[in-house]
Amino acid sequence: MSAKAKWLNKVKWDEHGLVPVIAQEVGSNHVLMFAWMNRDALSRTVESGEAVYWSRSRKKLWHKGEESGHIQKVHEIRLDCDEDVVLLKVEQVGDIACHTGRHSCFFQQFSGDHQKGEWTAVDPVLKDPENIYKK
Amino acid sequence: MSAKAKWLNKVKWDEHGLVPVIAQEVGSNHVLMFAWMNRDALSRTVESGEAVYWSRSRKKLWHKGEESGHIQKVHEIRLDCDEDVVLLKVEQVGDIACHTGRHSCFFQQFSGDHQKGEWTAVDPVLKDPENIYKK
Repeated sequence: MSAKAKWLNKVKWDEHGLVPVIAQEVGSNHVLMFAWMNRDALSRTVESGEAVYWSRSRKKLWHKGEESGHIQKVHEIRLDCDEDVVLLKVEQVGDIACHTGRHSCFFQQFSGDHQKGEWTAVDPVLKDPENIYKK
Repeated sequence: MSAKAKWLNKVKWDEHGLVPVIAQEVGSNHVLMFAWMNRDALSRTVESGEAVYWSRSRKKLWHKGEESGHIQKVHEIRLDCDEDVVLLKVEQVGDIACHTGRHSCFFQQFSGDHQKGEWTAVDPVLKDPENIYKK
């Protein structure tokens, strides 16, 4: 994979060669997750039609759903005004984007005030992670 | 502003003391913009009920809409599973989140394939930026 295509130059890659990516569900417009891509990941995403991210912790390409089956079929790709953030509109296979077995990674809700607040998990676990990642 | 409240410790601030923030419109669920916050910005956001970001270019707090009037009234704040990304659900005053005068910053759409692609501005300018930022 060369990932040298001209259209990739429009993206302002950060000092690590990465760009933040927001994955949003087509239809509901739910924000499912946030991740990062490098040039190769974005190129492969376009080529395959499925979301491929760069895992900063594992330092390798991460084809979302490669273990869980919860792949993301890409319907649309957008770039922001500063050209340094990507928005993916995806169909979330299995309806589960989060490794905790929830629909969205953004399941912790703030309540309280600026002096005394708390974060509470408010969305249901749809599938036990034990059963998502089969040994 | 101390920004020492315990609930702020739940957030995993990056090496610059920042967290990525996605602003999403209440109701439509449109993703409006992406920005960053430090502890002080998030604390002030909760205290004021209006989005306050950290401007990485200007290196100072940025009360969104302070010049344009296009403030964001915060309805809900969410944190993701890794506790390192914040999602704001906001009411966008003036319907314009982008400094280009568009509803959303994500107005550039990709078309093509991985070898030959292009980005095209597909959303309308609702108000001329010249008239948003009055001298």
